[in-house]
Amino acid sequence: MTKPLFKVSTPVEAIKVLKDHLDIQKIIQKNREIVNIKDSLHRVLAEEIISPCNLPGFNRSTMDGYAIRAEDSFGASESLPSYLKIIGEIKMGSKSEFKINPGEAVKISTGAMLPEGANAVIMLEYTVLIDDTTVELRRSVAPWENIVREDEDLKAGEVLLKEGYRLRPQDIGILAGIGKINIKVFKRPRVAIISTGNEIIPAQDEPQIGEIRDINLYTLGACVEEADGIPIYKGIIKDEVDLLEQEIRKTIKKDKVEVVIVSGGSSMGTRDITLEVLNKLGKPGVLIHGVSVRPGKPTIIAVANDKPIFGLPGHPVSSMIIFNLFVRPLISWLQGGDYNYNSDNPKEVKAELTCNVVSDSGREDYVRVFMYKEKGKFYAEPVLGKSGLISTMVRASGLIKIGLNIEGIEKGSKVMVKLFN
Amino acid sequence: MTKPLFKVSTPVEAIKVLKDHLDIQKIIQKNREIVNIKDSLHRVLAEEIISPCNLPGFNRSTMDGYAIRAEDSFGASESLPSYLKIIGEIKMGSKSEFKINPGEAVKISTGAMLPEGANAVIMLEYTVLIDDTTVELRRSVAPWENIVREDEDLKAGEVLLKEGYRLRPQDIGILAGIGKINIKVFKRPRVAIISTGNEIIPAQDEPQIGEIRDINLYTLGACVEEADGIPIYKGIIKDEVDLLEQEIRKTIKKDKVEVVIVSGGSSMGTRDITLEVLNKLGKPGVLIHGVSVRPGKPTIIAVANDKPIFGLPGHPVSSMIIFNLFVRPLISWLQGGDYNYNSDNPKEVKAELTCNVVSDSGREDYVRVFMYKEKGKFYAEPVLGKSGLISTMVRASGLIKIGLNIEGIEKGSKVMVKLFN
Repeated sequence: MTKPLFKVSTPVEAIKVLKDHLDIQKIIQKNREIVNIKDSLHRVLAEEIISPCNLPGFNRSTMDGYAIRAEDSFGASESLPSYLKIIGEIKMGSKSEFKINPGEAVKISTGAMLPEGANAVIMLEYTVLIDDTTVELRRSVAPWENIVREDEDLKAGEVLLKEGYRLRPQDIGILAGIGKINIKVFKRPRVAIISTGNEIIPAQDEPQIGEIRDINLYTLGACVEEADGIPIYKGIIKDEVDLLEQEIRKTIKKDKVEVVIVSGGSSMGTRDITLEVLNKLGKPGVLIHGVSVRPGKPTIIAVANDKPIFGLPGHPVSSMIIFNLFVRPLISWLQGGDYNYNSDNPKEVKAELTCNVVSDSGREDYVRVFMYKEKGKFYAEPVLGKSGLISTMVRASGLIKIGLNIEGIEKGSKVMVKLFN
Repeated sequence: MTKPLFKVSTPVEAIKVLKDHLDIQKIIQKNREIVNIKDSLHRVLAEEIISPCNLPGFNRSTMDGYAIRAEDSFGASESLPSYLKIIGEIKMGSKSEFKINPGEAVKISTGAMLPEGANAVIMLEYTVLIDDTTVELRRSVAPWENIVREDEDLKAGEVLLKEGYRLRPQDIGILAGIGKINIKVFKRPRVAIISTGNEIIPAQDEPQIGEIRDINLYTLGACVEEADGIPIYKGIIKDEVDLLEQEIRKTIKKDKVEVVIVSGGSSMGTRDITLEVLNKLGKPGVLIHGVSVRPGKPTIIAVANDKPIFGLPGHPVSSMIIFNLFVRPLISWLQGGDYNYNSDNPKEVKAELTCNVVSDSGREDYVRVFMYKEKGKFYAEPVLGKSGLISTMVRASGLIKIGLNIEGIEKGSKVMVKLFN
């Protein structure tokens, strides 16, 4: 176990400290449920799937034509065709009753079962029907041409999908193919979202001068949903230690949440309240206080009795960026995955930076950019504005990261834009 | 209106013909509904949003410190500080009662309202509290430094989001910020999925030899879900004209679907049945019969009384690829969007091809590839196998497209991989 750090931490340090203080395997052990595969898109497998059977399970034609012995076609050409005797036609979806002997052929459709004795299918296009019982072959076919072998898609006993695997449409399809209709998946983690700040009012209310509607409740709720978690909207708590402590204890107990996010409190007084509460809830308490990320420095990460609790900055831009760096990976770990925002985010597009961007060394900078295409080329244009301005995120298409020890990026440089969904 | 084509069409032609025969604007006119913004992630706006107010609505401090007149700090430094009289502290979330005169300062927290007369905030770090009523300034601040102006995030009357816009977390946040809790969105299109083929059995059943479980129902259902549509699972219909016709008429009427997908029928006989039925259901009938795409050539696209109906190939790989090319964009159009799989799919990653891939000119080829990273570089390795093998899609990370008039791509070339979700 690493000792809790009370200096500003790099994102990598923060992730490590959080992981060191959570027994993920123990937490997720009981977080499994059975779902029908129709409800399993983007869910994460909590069991290993071994194929119980071959797929397709029988040798299957991939073409309309004639099932034959490949040997009977060898040497056949338009100028020197071969002739075979048609002994019948295979019915779709049933066991072939035929057995093919040398010199014989059976009419077959795409998807039908290959008859005994046959080892190839010749396409209709390369044949001529001479009479009811005779077919002319104008080409040769190789053994097993135009056939899917009985275990070519899947072999019985093969490990098909592993625990921790996130299901895509084709994965759900192959589960249907082996008759696995109900599967064990990890429960989607429940994440409570609490806003703090005496100036914050519910979004449906009319603000008096000096008040501001709650934005973070909604952005963070939607971020939880995008991360495949379940947002539990808790609303606004006034800046008082007792109220905040009670609310967090209540949501952990009654809403059975796995994660708590407290956002807000960018001013010193309120930050101190969050810090005090996050240290009162259980062991080990606050692990991280401040990260070397801009925007997003005033971030608090705590663990209390195996429950991770985040104190995110109040500025809407900062809270979203910090969510992606720390909470989103955590939601993935809690489903048996190992997602890392910076290395596993595949939605990156290369673009040319349209102006110089400066950054301080010793700090990761996330710069909002608007991306556009001109003459087939992508450009990334920084969206300027303070991190309190949600409109800058609305105007932006994604973020570019400027690493810890880089002091800026010059206009014209190629950058990787991490796209928003 | 273009005349229906009964030759093999390029994907671009097929999209054009489909669009020419559907009055999308008329169809979507009535497909609007009101939802709470908490339920609006990735939904598409069916109204224009104009900001009814300024955001934040008052001049707001972005720092903890003192609200002052910037002029009173000019020239201040550590060696030659200025001194101001503290006349009070602003309460968070309420209208400032103070009016600042020359030589005066008011204590202020991040997020609080700037008092009248002040035009800047000096950070706490650059001040020293001398006594209860005197603060020393050790730096100068510029006018409006550390302040978000009342309309800096949003101006009243500004068009914020347009009709047809797909909502991300930050967009939902800004709607909360202006108090717009309920919004008009396009309904998610309902898409019926029907499988055909006498060899196909329900996935929960045990196949007899020659039979095969229904895979496409599940892959296509999940694809509809990924495209933000609502899948209506109809199951398997035997290969008979009357049965298929009845089923499609029933699902259009009773399930109120906007789109019908019939998959299967890769053999000549069953293809003919789908073709016959799709021509019987209403005007104009079948528009496209065959597309120059591999895999996926035997594709049928029809419109009957303003309902688009697709006859997708039975092979699981082909049906998914054709779905992405034609059905997925259509689901986007039916929500007021204008998505195009080939130009609007941002989830592309550049990779190096690990072996030669050949393709025929005059046909778009979609090659399944497995992507891996080695020494920080992405490689795309073609996944070989027939289009009837769903396992090839499970092994693949995405697709590379080989354009109509390209005859192949050499090993070592840079390719763009369209990632699966």
